[in-house]
Amino acid sequence: MFKDTSKQRKNLLTMAGEELDIVIRGGTLVTMSADMGVVENCFIGIKDGVVSFVTSAGEKSAPACMPKETIDASGCIVLPGLINTHTHLPMVCFRGMADDLPLMEWLTGHIFPAEAKFVDKEMVRAGATLALAEMIFSGTTTFCDAYFFESVVAEAALEAGMRAVVAQGFADFATPDNPRYEKMMAAAQRFLKRWQSCAPMITPAFFCHSPYTCSPTTLVNVKKAAREAGILYLLHLLENRDETEIIENRYGKNPVRHLFDLDVLDESTIAVHCNWADQKDMEILAAKGVGVSHNPESSMKLAAGVAPVAQMLERGITVGLGTDGAASNNDLDMFREMDSAAKIHKVTSLNPTVMSAATVLHMATAGGAQLLKMDHLIGSVEKGKKADIIIVDAKQPHLTPLYNCYSQLVYAARGADVKTSIIDGKIVMKDRQLLTIDLPSAIDRVNEIASRIISENK
Amino acid sequence: MFKDTSKQRKNLLTMAGEELDIVIRGGTLVTMSADMGVVENCFIGIKDGVVSFVTSAGEKSAPACMPKETIDASGCIVLPGLINTHTHLPMVCFRGMADDLPLMEWLTGHIFPAEAKFVDKEMVRAGATLALAEMIFSGTTTFCDAYFFESVVAEAALEAGMRAVVAQGFADFATPDNPRYEKMMAAAQRFLKRWQSCAPMITPAFFCHSPYTCSPTTLVNVKKAAREAGILYLLHLLENRDETEIIENRYGKNPVRHLFDLDVLDESTIAVHCNWADQKDMEILAAKGVGVSHNPESSMKLAAGVAPVAQMLERGITVGLGTDGAASNNDLDMFREMDSAAKIHKVTSLNPTVMSAATVLHMATAGGAQLLKMDHLIGSVEKGKKADIIIVDAKQPHLTPLYNCYSQLVYAARGADVKTSIIDGKIVMKDRQLLTIDLPSAIDRVNEIASRIISENK
Repeated sequence: MFKDTSKQRKNLLTMAGEELDIVIRGGTLVTMSADMGVVENCFIGIKDGVVSFVTSAGEKSAPACMPKETIDASGCIVLPGLINTHTHLPMVCFRGMADDLPLMEWLTGHIFPAEAKFVDKEMVRAGATLALAEMIFSGTTTFCDAYFFESVVAEAALEAGMRAVVAQGFADFATPDNPRYEKMMAAAQRFLKRWQSCAPMITPAFFCHSPYTCSPTTLVNVKKAAREAGILYLLHLLENRDETEIIENRYGKNPVRHLFDLDVLDESTIAVHCNWADQKDMEILAAKGVGVSHNPESSMKLAAGVAPVAQMLERGITVGLGTDGAASNNDLDMFREMDSAAKIHKVTSLNPTVMSAATVLHMATAGGAQLLKMDHLIGSVEKGKKADIIIVDAKQPHLTPLYNCYSQLVYAARGADVKTSIIDGKIVMKDRQLLTIDLPSAIDRVNEIASRIISENK
Repeated sequence: MFKDTSKQRKNLLTMAGEELDIVIRGGTLVTMSADMGVVENCFIGIKDGVVSFVTSAGEKSAPACMPKETIDASGCIVLPGLINTHTHLPMVCFRGMADDLPLMEWLTGHIFPAEAKFVDKEMVRAGATLALAEMIFSGTTTFCDAYFFESVVAEAALEAGMRAVVAQGFADFATPDNPRYEKMMAAAQRFLKRWQSCAPMITPAFFCHSPYTCSPTTLVNVKKAAREAGILYLLHLLENRDETEIIENRYGKNPVRHLFDLDVLDESTIAVHCNWADQKDMEILAAKGVGVSHNPESSMKLAAGVAPVAQMLERGITVGLGTDGAASNNDLDMFREMDSAAKIHKVTSLNPTVMSAATVLHMATAGGAQLLKMDHLIGSVEKGKKADIIIVDAKQPHLTPLYNCYSQLVYAARGADVKTSIIDGKIVMKDRQLLTIDLPSAIDRVNEIASRIISENK
């Protein structure tokens, strides 16, 4: 429309009277906004981290503008950045260390001992940084993490320019960052004080590991503190079949009823997994407004179970998608997670119409944003929302031809197809080059930690 | 060891007294040979399409050699090319055209009408060529295909330098390539005559669509002709739950018993899917030496079922992995297929120890070679076998760290990580550049066909 010369750039303003930071032109935009609109030959303006306008470049009313940077997205699919609602980032250090084992042998024989021995601030920083690189490379722009030394994860996310919910963990046993578990609440209050208004890209939360590792007192006290601070409260729930028996033996009721009676279930509670939620459980979760993070690949690999997600959605429960940690997946690729989510529910119900591609893409974007209470900011590409946008290179054999963007993104695209990623209006990856992370050094540092793990296990 | 100058190259010979075509040095070789050996810092010699030696570059006995081409595989995982034992390549033209529908609506409302209208030699050539590109890009070096105009698929494979089993199809109804189905056998004999000794890379076979679309006479006559020619005989079997009822209503016995009584089951028969095989069925398949092609992703997406593969392997049934066509998957990426294969059996049996990563990688390589009766040629990287080798770039965040090659390849690697591919001793892809296919033209041709499909369906 206009030639990009610096003279012109200085003189020309958008229709809104603003100079733009970035313009994306061409390609097909899958907005994931409420009307799920798809915009062909899209034209998106970004200014100060926010989407200024979304239109079609072919429209007569398309704004005249001269941005600092123009991204040509022709032949691409443009969509909101993916939202990974449950991860344990530093566990990438244990990726592939122990697989195909019974759950308790895996946990108590491999993961817990490795965590006791090797988790420290250095490991958390190295693992989180590598995981951030992996997530940016595969189209994730926001994640919700829970691990030890969570402030270090937050620092790494801030440096990498990713949007994050970082959850300080609680359990009734010693952890690498809290050798005396009675002091966890004091540590959590320090964590909260540091992060609650420090950086808009970082949102602190509290995470009780599970109803079987946290006493009723812990569950209640942490929820009380979370309510006072107005933050999210997360916990693993009903991941494995035997959790119900454990909780029934201990408290005389099933896990969801137990949590209900403790009054820790509300709209700011996120239950992770819920593989074994029955109709009554889902009724309670729906009534209390509890959201669910669905992590199908981890639960498939650990043989934990398949969450009844189609029924949850029917009941109006908000569901987001997550990868879980890389020790049980073994990657953080949300595209693979979408593919598995769409397929596993079809085959286990023998019904190919459940969990359509559009439903799954919604879980990975707008649904995840709702779950994390961020849907006023992210989850769709529309005017006024934060510019968290990814661009998928569709000019590839496995993405040819293109009949339906939802099908293509869920069933055929993969993380490696993401060409460019913008978070909060800043380009963090351009043409597969990371701009905010020193990748060779991130790889080296994790390899050094793995060498120590290997040599100590010999 | 020696500097690569042409003077030296002429003078220096391998220990076997041969000049080499290609040497691969460095990286970790996962041989998939009978002892499942892994060779660190590998050193592989290739001459006239065949592996001349496999050793470690660190060994004192490593041969001195001066190859025409040296590939540096340091930081990579080297493994045998993947074998896709069931595909319908040209169906990439229908990728994403109709998804998330009930099976019969999908087949009779979308796929069959599109095939009747749009399948011709041009479509088959365009689709097959694009599919070949997709397969090479994702590490497949051998495939077994069945579609219409199968000679055109064979020609495209030959041009692309891929190893193929191409199966001429039979069904008791008109097909795009055989409007009069009584003439299918004559056409098949012409197909056989053309391909049986024409090119060592192309192996012809016969494919009866299924027991419900082929009469007993067709099933028997085709098997008779296959036996006379000494070729493989393939058929879809027990893909969907209702197949048993259909066959029982028609013939008074279940599908496997029906085929057994027709005497079409033997060691040269490949049954595709077998999702609903029960113990008695598996007993018969094992006793007759029938092999199975397992296509988990297609059967997940179509909600067709989950084959009892762990039990098949326990009974000694040969099982290979396949993607099926891209209309029901929606990609031809064997890495994704491996990941899904390893995970689906764990979660449906609630047992994380079934279908280990090594078992799955075996199905995708050596197992597939056995299934296609090619295990004397391919399926492992070892001296005397054909040089069908892929090199996976492991210096990436999602492939860091590396504790276990099998886990990494099955649970974390993906097609896009394949850097270089060698088939029959020829490099068909180098550093992600296809050397045997004009990719932009392949993409354009399929897009043109898709435009016609879209405009006719409007």
